Amino acid sequence: MRLGLNKFLTPFRIIVISYVVAMFFFSLLLYLPFASQAGVTVSYWDALFTSVSAVSVTGLSVVNVSETYNWLGVIFLALGIQLGGIGVMTLGTFVWMVLGRKIALSQRMLIMVDQNQISFSGLVRLMRGILGVAIGIELIGAMILGTYYLNYFDTAFEAYYQGAFSALSAFTNAGFDITGQSLIPFADDYFVQLVHILLIFSGAIGFPVLMELREYFSPKNPNFRFSLFTKIATSTYFIVFFFGVIILWLIERTEFYDGMPWHQQLFFSMFNSATARSGGLATMDMNELTLASLLLLSALMIIGASPSSVGGGIRTTTLAVMFLTIRSFAMGRGDVKVFGREIHPEDQQKAFIVLSVFAVGLVGAIILIAGFEGTGQFQLMAIIFEASSAFGTCGLSMGITPDLSKPSQVVLMILMLIGRVGLVAFMFSIRAEEKKTHYKYPTERIIIG
Amino acid sequence: MRLGLNKFLTPFRIIVISYVVAMFFFSLLLYLPFASQAGVTVSYWDALFTSVSAVSVTGLSVVNVSETYNWLGVIFLALGIQLGGIGVMTLGTFVWMVLGRKIALSQRMLIMVDQNQISFSGLVRLMRGILGVAIGIELIGAMILGTYYLNYFDTAFEAYYQGAFSALSAFTNAGFDITGQSLIPFADDYFVQLVHILLIFSGAIGFPVLMELREYFSPKNPNFRFSLFTKIATSTYFIVFFFGVIILWLIERTEFYDGMPWHQQLFFSMFNSATARSGGLATMDMNELTLASLLLLSALMIIGASPSSVGGGIRTTTLAVMFLTIRSFAMGRGDVKVFGREIHPEDQQKAFIVLSVFAVGLVGAIILIAGFEGTGQFQLMAIIFEASSAFGTCGLSMGITPDLSKPSQVVLMILMLIGRVGLVAFMFSIRAEEKKTHYKYPTERIIIG
Ligand SMILES: [K+]
Ligand SMILES: [K+]
Repeated sequence: MRLGLNKFLTPFRIIVISYVVAMFFFSLLLYLPFASQAGVTVSYWDALFTSVSAVSVTGLSVVNVSETYNWLGVIFLALGIQLGGIGVMTLGTFVWMVLGRKIALSQRMLIMVDQNQISFSGLVRLMRGILGVAIGIELIGAMILGTYYLNYFDTAFEAYYQGAFSALSAFTNAGFDITGQSLIPFADDYFVQLVHILLIFSGAIGFPVLMELREYFSPKNPNFRFSLFTKIATSTYFIVFFFGVIILWLIERTEFYDGMPWHQQLFFSMFNSATARSGGLATMDMNELTLASLLLLSALMIIGASPSSVGGGIRTTTLAVMFLTIRSFAMGRGDVKVFGREIHPEDQQKAFIVLSVFAVGLVGAIILIAGFEGTGQFQLMAIIFEASSAFGTCGLSMGITPDLSKPSQVVLMILMLIGRVGLVAFMFSIRAEEKKTHYKYPTERIIIG
Repeated sequence: MRLGLNKFLTPFRIIVISYVVAMFFFSLLLYLPFASQAGVTVSYWDALFTSVSAVSVTGLSVVNVSETYNWLGVIFLALGIQLGGIGVMTLGTFVWMVLGRKIALSQRMLIMVDQNQISFSGLVRLMRGILGVAIGIELIGAMILGTYYLNYFDTAFEAYYQGAFSALSAFTNAGFDITGQSLIPFADDYFVQLVHILLIFSGAIGFPVLMELREYFSPKNPNFRFSLFTKIATSTYFIVFFFGVIILWLIERTEFYDGMPWHQQLFFSMFNSATARSGGLATMDMNELTLASLLLLSALMIIGASPSSVGGGIRTTTLAVMFLTIRSFAMGRGDVKVFGREIHPEDQQKAFIVLSVFAVGLVGAIILIAGFEGTGQFQLMAIIFEASSAFGTCGLSMGITPDLSKPSQVVLMILMLIGRVGLVAFMFSIRAEEKKTHYKYPTERIIIG
């Protein structure tokens, strides 16, 4: 029984299968007639798309959630988001740690522990730690937003209901809303926006970073040092964020921002740059932006968040390794050094693979959608925007997703699934068993580029 | 004098500087009043753009060549194309071989000779070989096309004049035309198209491949084996070509091809797939194609031709290494094997750099052009098409290049220059002196993707 089930169920495959099962499970829940508003019938297709979008914490939607689902449907949606954003991740961590091979472990969980030394109780403590931090942040966000929303909503129940969903949606970078129009009602409320930006950051920065931060501030560990991963992921995350703010402002200052006070220009730039990095909530209609900004946002969505976070995209570390490799080549060096450490050649190779697969996949998806939709019905910009949003599990939209044909929606669903799983994990899940090759071919150089 | 001129003039810098000098030199020639048609005044800007396009053998144009230049202007243009397509390349080879460091040599000239053993006379023979093969192919093409064009043109002079320019433009993948409307007058003449396709192939397949083919058919060398470069470059070139033909046909069979006889569908597909790989000549108006096809052609232009050829793009070997790396990862292997050889890790790293720089550069250029052009004036598809065409030195156009603002045209010129030089050579030209680092940092793994 060499090809038995145990052999087939590698940790990475378990992760992918968990996501797919969760997507189908929640599609059934969201299809239940008593989960939708009175008088509204949800087709199974729409329920499936909503479920895939929720479990992949993307936020692209073919229905208006607040007009379609009642409180029960919203709870199903919230559970799907929570499971997709945090549950599968911690479940995955657990599976990796218990069943995992060394390679999976060393790639995923770099948190200060060496997996060879950690005990089973240590594992459970670690997972509980991740879950605790995540739910703790969500609760704090819900309390702050809910209390503040008392100014906006008629009843305390409605205020805390909205606040809780909003905090969940922001921290998990899900991008769903039950206001019916995302955060556009709060376009002038900078406090609400700041809280959402901070929640988006906390979710997208990566669980290892959160865990290391907790360790850093713990009195038990006076000699704690941040890992290379945390340093690279965090600095890349914020460099790209500020870069996005500045370029967006440069593009729009004479266009959409024309005549606005400086603080409004600043907050539109900040919120858009933050939300494009997998957040998916919006304080404005994307169609108001110029072509250059829409392209910039697409690029930010493609870059996305950190690995081992609730966000998607090629991920911050991939981008960092790209630029570090270019930099060290330009400086005439063979190895790639940063923060007093060297990047492992295998991590460079992985970044190359992620970039290649992402480029080929995204271009292929855009051509497929353009082909399915035929001539002229949708603008290319909108197609690129939705595809980048799906692959980066961002959820920002120019509004065409509900009107796309079913084959195009299938393409988006596949992009969301792969985007959520992450390209490296996805590739590991479909790759064949590692082969020990006992023969070597001679190396021969070729001309590149 | 550690930082003297000799130190500054590395082989790669000499190549870049040669191209830039040639571009300015030919811009002056093309600006000469007696090189243009009676009554036509060429601005220096247009002459510069035409020269950059000619020397980079791109073919994007802000003027209609046949309406703008007289026979002298056309000769200047042809010389610029010849110099850019073949001259700088062989000059470059020479410089590399005489001054070059090992690294430059081993990267560029893999032709069956080992640079450590080759003598100066051997170098000259090699260069003469390249020039001879190139000019030989051009002459044969000119004879065939010129003779055949006797059916089309009134005088023998006009027929051979057109045939010679056409053969030059096709072999060097320059994409310029003096018919005034590219090859559209020959849209029904499959013989003309086949000859052009073969000429485009010969130029784009790479000089090392041509030289090895000559060696292969030479009786002097019965034990000759093709290099890994030739095998990878050639197979990738044709796989992508056939892929392009099939996908283009699948997209357009119910659209632009609707109602056409099969042979016309076949030839439109074949010619477009061939010409997009740096050729730049066209048998139809690109605006007739659907969005999906225009995206496909952009992707083909970005892939481009082989290194050490007259074509541009990320190049066939970069694409091949991308896919081979993905394949070996998916198969659970650490090394990358193909054709009984192993790809050198450094070549993998180079492919990664080319892909990264190309992606960042192209996206940046598209956002810049979109920004310069403001809202709505040009369709995104046209901007992507022209930028891909410039970076891939292809020259196919949706017709917007002459109407772009000057800053956007500057972006296109820079793309053409870098596209022609090739990203690896360009990076080598700007990179600092190779540093011998005597210290090592500890390696630390990070999470990718
Ligand atoms: K999202
Ligand atoms: K060309």
